[in-house]
Amino acid sequence: MGRWKPDARGRLEKAAMELYNDKGFDATTVAEIAARAEVTERTFYRHFVDKREVLFQPNALADVLAHATATAAAPLAPLEVIAHALTEAAPVLEERAELVRQRQAVIAANPELQERELAKLASLASTLADALRERGLEATTATLAAEIGIAAFKVAIERWADDPGRHTLARWIRETLDAIRHLTAPAGGGPRPPSGPAS
Amino acid sequence: MGRWKPDARGRLEKAAMELYNDKGFDATTVAEIAARAEVTERTFYRHFVDKREVLFQPNALADVLAHATATAAAPLAPLEVIAHALTEAAPVLEERAELVRQRQAVIAANPELQERELAKLASLASTLADALRERGLEATTATLAAEIGIAAFKVAIERWADDPGRHTLARWIRETLDAIRHLTAPAGGGPRPPSGPAS
Repeated sequence: MGRWKPDARGRLEKAAMELYNDKGFDATTVAEIAARAEVTERTFYRHFVDKREVLFQPNALADVLAHATATAAAPLAPLEVIAHALTEAAPVLEERAELVRQRQAVIAANPELQERELAKLASLASTLADALRERGLEATTATLAAEIGIAAFKVAIERWADDPGRHTLARWIRETLDAIRHLTAPAGGGPRPPSGPAS
Repeated sequence: MGRWKPDARGRLEKAAMELYNDKGFDATTVAEIAARAEVTERTFYRHFVDKREVLFQPNALADVLAHATATAAAPLAPLEVIAHALTEAAPVLEERAELVRQRQAVIAANPELQERELAKLASLASTLADALRERGLEATTATLAAEIGIAAFKVAIERWADDPGRHTLARWIRETLDAIRHLTAPAGGGPRPPSGPAS
């Protein structure tokens, strides 16, 4: 397979995402991923348990969220703590923007992977809820704030991945969390709209 | 299996929930469910595809949510539309309170069922988002409002199932949605808390 090249892991990830997008996740084999990355299958298995783990790597996100929640300034509204934690976690995704974008597309195309992704987001929500409770937040409030925070995170990542050049992920996170405030105002935000159809 | 008794389906559900709670979901067989419900296995399969479908029945929830969202009063804040839709859906669960409570416990004990439940909630969120878009809400706002609404629904159902005699589910839904407003205020809600530990 040619001479040794650096960053086998990075090339495996890139090769896997391309194949998952081109052929579909189910139709892609580890042999194909290894071949495209110009490494042996054995090298693949040194980095990943299976082809699904390329999409669901234990990453730094949960640790960053927990740490940032614990160390946020003291008298802060729960959603402000969450805004702080999520924006601290944003660089973890931003430095892998193209892989994240491809990963979103692969997952969107496969119901089984979607279920796995929902489980991963639920686990992030539970990490966040634990960290909020540690700050002294009442248990139900912590759960609610964490669920809402992760829902906003998911929406922000989608907006950012759709159009990565437009804003940073951190800015999408802020805008999405700000939008929650406006959900309590009538649609349109202005005075009562005319009752008839616009003509 | 004795003489014919009415409501085979109801007895199958009750028997299944009891067995899932007592023995665990994985260890329970269809034969055992049928025996406890005093019907044949064939009768079980007339009502359910498999033992998992007893927990994940196609139910009226999605239809009620979509209809109530479509017919809510016109100039209403997105979260008010959601409050209306979720409280309209509450009776679907309230009339099966004991089964819902047992179902929550079975799912909480089994990671695979938890993934299935997350997928079901995500599908409810997507039904709700579609219905909000139909009302003219911008796509991202609709998705965010729906995700937050379903997060609140999940928390409200847990609070209600923990202590079903205390409040109606509809009231828990209202309280949980109201709590979202307070998430933007500093924890405790009052003036800056003392900086030292309480002693």
